[in-house]
Amino acid sequence: MNDKVRVAVVGCGYWGPNMVRNFSELDRVEVAVVCDLRQNRLEAIQRRYPSVFTTIEFARVVEDPTIDAVVLTTPVATHYPLAKQAITCGKHVFVEKPLTASLTEAEDLVKLARLHGRVLMVDHTFLYTGAVQKLKELIARGELGDLYYFDSVRVNLGIFQPDVSVVWDLAAHDISIMTYLLDRNPVAVSATGATHFKWQTEDIAYITTMFDDSLLGHVHVSWLSPVKIRQMLIAGSKRMIVYNDNEPSEKVKVYDRGVNFTDTSDALYDLLVNYRIGDVHIPRLDTREALHVECEHFIDCILTGQRPLSDGESGLGVVRVLEAAQHSIHNQGKVVYL
Amino acid sequence: MNDKVRVAVVGCGYWGPNMVRNFSELDRVEVAVVCDLRQNRLEAIQRRYPSVFTTIEFARVVEDPTIDAVVLTTPVATHYPLAKQAITCGKHVFVEKPLTASLTEAEDLVKLARLHGRVLMVDHTFLYTGAVQKLKELIARGELGDLYYFDSVRVNLGIFQPDVSVVWDLAAHDISIMTYLLDRNPVAVSATGATHFKWQTEDIAYITTMFDDSLLGHVHVSWLSPVKIRQMLIAGSKRMIVYNDNEPSEKVKVYDRGVNFTDTSDALYDLLVNYRIGDVHIPRLDTREALHVECEHFIDCILTGQRPLSDGESGLGVVRVLEAAQHSIHNQGKVVYL
Amino acid sequence: MNDKVRVAVVGCGYWGPNMVRNFSELDRVEVAVVCDLRQNRLEAIQRRYPSVFTTIEFARVVEDPTIDAVVLTTPVATHYPLAKQAITCGKHVFVEKPLTASLTEAEDLVKLARLHGRVLMVDHTFLYTGAVQKLKELIARGELGDLYYFDSVRVNLGIFQPDVSVVWDLAAHDISIMTYLLDRNPVAVSATGATHFKWQTEDIAYITTMFDDSLLGHVHVSWLSPVKIRQMLIAGSKRMIVYNDNEPSEKVKVYDRGVNFTDTSDALYDLLVNYRIGDVHIPRLDTREALHVECEHFIDCILTGQRPLSDGESGLGVVRVLEAAQHSIHNQGKVVYL
Amino acid sequence: MNDKVRVAVVGCGYWGPNMVRNFSELDRVEVAVVCDLRQNRLEAIQRRYPSVFTTIEFARVVEDPTIDAVVLTTPVATHYPLAKQAITCGKHVFVEKPLTASLTEAEDLVKLARLHGRVLMVDHTFLYTGAVQKLKELIARGELGDLYYFDSVRVNLGIFQPDVSVVWDLAAHDISIMTYLLDRNPVAVSATGATHFKWQTEDIAYITTMFDDSLLGHVHVSWLSPVKIRQMLIAGSKRMIVYNDNEPSEKVKVYDRGVNFTDTSDALYDLLVNYRIGDVHIPRLDTREALHVECEHFIDCILTGQRPLSDGESGLGVVRVLEAAQHSIHNQGKVVYL
Repeated sequence: MNDKVRVAVVGCGYWGPNMVRNFSELDRVEVAVVCDLRQNRLEAIQRRYPSVFTTIEFARVVEDPTIDAVVLTTPVATHYPLAKQAITCGKHVFVEKPLTASLTEAEDLVKLARLHGRVLMVDHTFLYTGAVQKLKELIARGELGDLYYFDSVRVNLGIFQPDVSVVWDLAAHDISIMTYLLDRNPVAVSATGATHFKWQTEDIAYITTMFDDSLLGHVHVSWLSPVKIRQMLIAGSKRMIVYNDNEPSEKVKVYDRGVNFTDTSDALYDLLVNYRIGDVHIPRLDTREALHVECEHFIDCILTGQRPLSDGESGLGVVRVLEAAQHSIHNQGKVVYL
Repeated sequence: MNDKVRVAVVGCGYWGPNMVRNFSELDRVEVAVVCDLRQNRLEAIQRRYPSVFTTIEFARVVEDPTIDAVVLTTPVATHYPLAKQAITCGKHVFVEKPLTASLTEAEDLVKLARLHGRVLMVDHTFLYTGAVQKLKELIARGELGDLYYFDSVRVNLGIFQPDVSVVWDLAAHDISIMTYLLDRNPVAVSATGATHFKWQTEDIAYITTMFDDSLLGHVHVSWLSPVKIRQMLIAGSKRMIVYNDNEPSEKVKVYDRGVNFTDTSDALYDLLVNYRIGDVHIPRLDTREALHVECEHFIDCILTGQRPLSDGESGLGVVRVLEAAQHSIHNQGKVVYL
Repeated sequence: MNDKVRVAVVGCGYWGPNMVRNFSELDRVEVAVVCDLRQNRLEAIQRRYPSVFTTIEFARVVEDPTIDAVVLTTPVATHYPLAKQAITCGKHVFVEKPLTASLTEAEDLVKLARLHGRVLMVDHTFLYTGAVQKLKELIARGELGDLYYFDSVRVNLGIFQPDVSVVWDLAAHDISIMTYLLDRNPVAVSATGATHFKWQTEDIAYITTMFDDSLLGHVHVSWLSPVKIRQMLIAGSKRMIVYNDNEPSEKVKVYDRGVNFTDTSDALYDLLVNYRIGDVHIPRLDTREALHVECEHFIDCILTGQRPLSDGESGLGVVRVLEAAQHSIHNQGKVVYL
Repeated sequence: MNDKVRVAVVGCGYWGPNMVRNFSELDRVEVAVVCDLRQNRLEAIQRRYPSVFTTIEFARVVEDPTIDAVVLTTPVATHYPLAKQAITCGKHVFVEKPLTASLTEAEDLVKLARLHGRVLMVDHTFLYTGAVQKLKELIARGELGDLYYFDSVRVNLGIFQPDVSVVWDLAAHDISIMTYLLDRNPVAVSATGATHFKWQTEDIAYITTMFDDSLLGHVHVSWLSPVKIRQMLIAGSKRMIVYNDNEPSEKVKVYDRGVNFTDTSDALYDLLVNYRIGDVHIPRLDTREALHVECEHFIDCILTGQRPLSDGESGLGVVRVLEAAQHSIHNQGKVVYL
């Protein structure tokens, strides 16, 4: 009897081969099948992984009873129908982000996975990086004090996506990181954006997420920036963080900085505000490849019944914000309540 | 007979002494009077500039027929009444930014200045920097092609202002630079922000300005950032610019970058998008102190009748956007038409 | 008849697999044999390249008449005996840097290659990067004017080499780049360095190379730096260059800067010196993998008889400087004439 | 009776006015006299400091019995004769760096100051910066472990000095910082350099200082660099430091990095070397103006008899290294023992 988890990877575009490579490196896994509609993509896989079975028929993947888990790295629009089929056939499913193309679809998948008792996990890769894990640890320990805001900039030149706007493509990362770190869901969204090429969707967008207090989340995404910026600012009453993902090693800087207000209404203004400038700390980060950690986590969840860190619910939460942001953009910043 | 322009500087807080110093260095100017309500501030001026007359009475300034021009570096709320008095008394007026605390006030001042034939100029200092002058030159020459967006980030820790929000304080810079460079006024504004200290106004804000086409302007201002960022991205169809004001000398970088779309609806997607990555150019900038250039310009306008680059109208345009942004923030991003 | 160049790669440590991969990707090449003393390394190659023949016997490589060229990625001490055998057996040889462990050995190899009419090429990979090619182009065109100096810093934490000092390991890169760019050989060397671990060789070194005029070359290499620095300054009378290899894309910056002296002995000093600060230009660079370009060049040289850009003579020139530097270090900076 | 220390500042070039300003701001000091040969420089001082007495005669300064201390900011060649006169007349003396133009002169001044019981202090300003004070604290506490090396780069375009080489001008800073931080004097020097303009002295130099163990000090100074670099690397067995003086606030970074060797001669090489990569710490620094701190220290030393941190002996130590370096440069790197 084969005691390895038998995985099928469906979709061999940009991201699929990374999945094949990472799952292949895991001891407890056998990449059994790779599926794609393009024969030449399958041939390339076959050359590098001679023992893998390749097919252009998705039905053969889900109907194969020896397959335990399906990894979907296909266009966003196909996530829902393919994942639904796979779950219904009793497979554990690992979907590239975003989980689905709409909130309704996401809700249905989450329900189905619960019903069938299958693992549904979304590939929000950044959550598994050493940087985000360190941020989570710092915030969870209360090192930042009361949280003031989360600000993320993710801009570069390209890569224009044919099927989704920059919101669904890039902001999916920031929203997933934000909700994971803050451990709260926003209550409203206001967003603006622009489309600069007639048959395209938005190539630049600004998304504000509001919470039920003064906490603010903001995301700036763009495919039209001359330079690549991957920077987050996260501030609290006790400490503030800059996370620059472009830095090769010093990605996370923790600033012992803040503002103290003395709330004495009769005192002179000058005496009331006081800036605290302390040391800066750059913690060492886990440097393992995030996708490797994530693939291992998916297998752990299958084998132990553990709930994935980026499970269906969290993926659904991201989709809810993205859908609201897209709606707000089409209404010039009109607030959308969640 | 004295053929020098006799200037009075009113307000000796942070910015006033810089005005005194810069006007003092001009050949054609005599800083005749300095006015402030705080006697100790006047004494400090007196020590450094023994020949200057100091007073705590604004009336003595405007009623002095030998005074040609009044420079106002007082709190924003006082700009309107003081400027109005000065103009009515026949003085040319140079006001610290923002021009006034409301659009109605700004409109009245502009009207008054026209009526009395006086120069009304706003101290939008950044317009007189070598960097912004170079940007203006590049954009005006059409080097960027069709403009896509203007994005500005101006954040740091402090300095909290007692009387105005971060929008009126910091964003005044970005909006003035934006409207000057683009040479267009936005038609609508959507903004969000937050207040983290109970008796304060907004300390963080995100402002989107919309134009009558796909051009987008965005400003992020904050007093609660662990690090100081002063960065603008300006992109067009032919070139893109990064202007980082924190750089000591290489502030403006011109990227020969862009995206080419081939609009052939039947072609495969992959063939349609093409990224152009060319050279980067860092132009040498004029390194003169901007405030010096600006003070000289004010005097030129007085003597020649020339219209100031940052005249009342442009200051009014800035106030219009700020007021709309503040209104939108209070309505969670609701679009405000201008 | 097989019209492909049949290549054998000898040595499967860190660099060897890169050679196998790059030569495998070339159309005109067949990687026929891979040789290493460690069976497990060969097995790893076999798994990835099933069609390659592997062996632990170097004799089988050089005695195989179907092998056209031998690539040596073995420890430095073995370069000479292995290359000698290969050339004598009529093979073209491509050796990892540095060419040999001594000048005498290098001279012998160069002589042998000439005698047997074989290509002898050294893997000075950096010469084939887009950055160095752009520098070469700029310098060769005279864009820098008269050359003043070449200064290179190549420091990081590790990787300590068991068999050679930091001079032979890291400075080999800088000396090869320097002599290629300047197109001149130094006439003397003075170097200093230190050994901080008793059974090790030098882990930090400073090498000054002198030319027959005021041109100066300097190299700082270290395995004991907390941060990785890869920076060159190259200055001439007309322009100056900063080449920072750590930059992801803006590696080469060309500064239109210089000093003008007016040689009027009776003039006042202040009038004589004049600094020219002009624009900065960042040229777009070829982004192809340098090793790929280099492997292709080796094959071209074999097929066309063209002289390699990093041929035996140039490799010998590098070894001459390294040997002199090592000698000078042992004599506390004493000048060594070449 | 006047209980303030009465100071005379001699030399009103670039640095003198800074001395006048800083001493003027001290409560316990009266800047009584300013002396320079150029009448226009004195007039400028007079305008800004009307109560200061100005003179072109140095004799009047030293012969004035009410003057307690003389500050010399004159060309290097004049330091010795002027300081000698001042000390002999019973004045405390504060000399701009370097102390003198030769070792013999320095020795004589130190002897004289001791004989007359006067304070002799050298203006090695950097020692009084928050950054160097923090480095001193860290090194003195043993936080770096055994010291491996001190490496300093101080390069920029200009300012060419008419009277001294780049060694005497710029390296004076680095050598003073090095000897202060390491608290040891080098035993030998090997240096190289070049002169690119015929009637000039060296404009670029590389100086290696050797100690009686494997500790190494190196200084690279240049007036011919396209960019300004002010960076020091200081490494020890436990921690390593990067001090970048160009950084506006994060100047000192402490790296918890090192190399561990297991000295088991029979083990395989791979097992012996182990790199330790820990956190990075950026300490908050004192941001007071260094010259202000230093001027205050000079006054303290006069009033309390305390020995200056940059006293005559330490200034002499710097001159000894500079003279040796200059000699070594003229002999192409020949080692000079101290």
